[in-house]
Amino acid sequence: MSIKLETRVQHTCFDGAQGFYQHHSEIIGLPMRFSVYEPPLARQQRVPVLFFLAGLTCTEETFMIKAGAQRYAAELGLMLVSMDTSPRDTGITGEADDWEIGAGAGFYLDATEPPWSKYFHMESYVTQELCHVILSKFPADPERMGIFGHSMGGHGALTLALRHPGLYQSVSAFAPIAAPINCLWGQKAFSRYLGESTDSWQKHDATALIESGHRLPALLIDQGLNDPFLAEQLHPDYLETACQKADQPLLLRRHAGYDHSYFFISTFIRDHLQHHLAHLTSTTRQ
Amino acid sequence: MSIKLETRVQHTCFDGAQGFYQHHSEIIGLPMRFSVYEPPLARQQRVPVLFFLAGLTCTEETFMIKAGAQRYAAELGLMLVSMDTSPRDTGITGEADDWEIGAGAGFYLDATEPPWSKYFHMESYVTQELCHVILSKFPADPERMGIFGHSMGGHGALTLALRHPGLYQSVSAFAPIAAPINCLWGQKAFSRYLGESTDSWQKHDATALIESGHRLPALLIDQGLNDPFLAEQLHPDYLETACQKADQPLLLRRHAGYDHSYFFISTFIRDHLQHHLAHLTSTTRQ
Repeated sequence: MSIKLETRVQHTCFDGAQGFYQHHSEIIGLPMRFSVYEPPLARQQRVPVLFFLAGLTCTEETFMIKAGAQRYAAELGLMLVSMDTSPRDTGITGEADDWEIGAGAGFYLDATEPPWSKYFHMESYVTQELCHVILSKFPADPERMGIFGHSMGGHGALTLALRHPGLYQSVSAFAPIAAPINCLWGQKAFSRYLGESTDSWQKHDATALIESGHRLPALLIDQGLNDPFLAEQLHPDYLETACQKADQPLLLRRHAGYDHSYFFISTFIRDHLQHHLAHLTSTTRQ
Repeated sequence: MSIKLETRVQHTCFDGAQGFYQHHSEIIGLPMRFSVYEPPLARQQRVPVLFFLAGLTCTEETFMIKAGAQRYAAELGLMLVSMDTSPRDTGITGEADDWEIGAGAGFYLDATEPPWSKYFHMESYVTQELCHVILSKFPADPERMGIFGHSMGGHGALTLALRHPGLYQSVSAFAPIAAPINCLWGQKAFSRYLGESTDSWQKHDATALIESGHRLPALLIDQGLNDPFLAEQLHPDYLETACQKADQPLLLRRHAGYDHSYFFISTFIRDHLQHHLAHLTSTTRQ
């Protein structure tokens, strides 16, 4: 399969390359946009690559503009990839009318219910097609891939790593929707995308997946205690309890004063990149 | 004069406080917005403060979201202030129709020509009223104030420092409009805001001000060589020549590959904060 990429814009950043790209996605059936930061080391060799999954309303630009991650990626020799949070311009009636469903709210799963099932295949897009594009077109090391994300994208990072064991060697999240079947965001999205049977919901809920025996690499989660979504939507305590019962390694750090914004993410992004590098190195370079 | 601030939103960031504010500006005659990052050290004592002037189309949010400066401000104990780039919602016909003039394009001067002269008083706003608000409401040290900016805001930083000697003890710029009377951006803005007499233009042109005997603290400028505005609009070489003739200290760094974006700014922001801290300390703490 030949891959055609349109380079929308490229910027030099910390002596590396920050690019924004578009391609026709076979899996989605529409154009999709993604972003890549290539550290200086990538001019010489294949480097570890981290996929960042953004949250509700975000695009492939958000993380690259707001997180301040490039300095550390440059220092540590890590490639960063982010992608849009859903298909766009699908023609589905009302697709952009509600920020919790449709455009900007793909929830990193393959929808099974019409009308969303025609285009909303974000799980297959991220784990298969985008992965293939990155490994084919950029100097990324297929044996050292990590995944992380924020909020809805934290849910995505956890569930994609749980559902595709071995694909990602390191995982972390900022303020993830950790038990979506127990919050309104998750219930709304899952009922629209997956239908009313909660059996299918369990397969896309990080806490339920841990409870049913799925496992992850050692997990780092940062959570702000001033996060306005903490009490009703995120439920990291549910995931923490499941991990304790399952002996799933989890470092869950609760930070007084911090909220749900990228000002919170930027404060702790360095720790996440170091976490990934440590696990990518230790698991694959023994 | 009692100062009333509306706090629009605050975020914890690198253990400091990132706030976005609005107040009624007496000098502008309308509400104005600005942003402040207070480093952790500011909880204990007054700290040096840097005013960042953003470029065309930007707002008080741009620098705080995109530059990645807070990490270094937290480490170095520096307060950061940014502000909107013009009055907004003035009712002037066509105020937002052209990105080079009017809303988002205040050029950090006091307009003398109608219709702009009624509200467009950005020089007095930044050097007097905002300065007073910051020193009154935040733990900033009035003896250690620096100014810097980007593009139109680089022009602003240079000219405000040149026109108000002693107010700012440190100055730097990213890709400034260094000789605005010699570029279309400057000619367009100055003719509309200041009238057709170029005598008044000279007083708001950094290169002309140096040539006419004005001086600055030791100046740092970073300029990307892939900047699409370099050849036609920025003219750092004009400023460099004037500084050489005038024995005005200038470190002008030209960076291959870098463009006009905040990806460029973020790469070198640490150097600028260190430049300011060094000069704020050395000039006022002897």
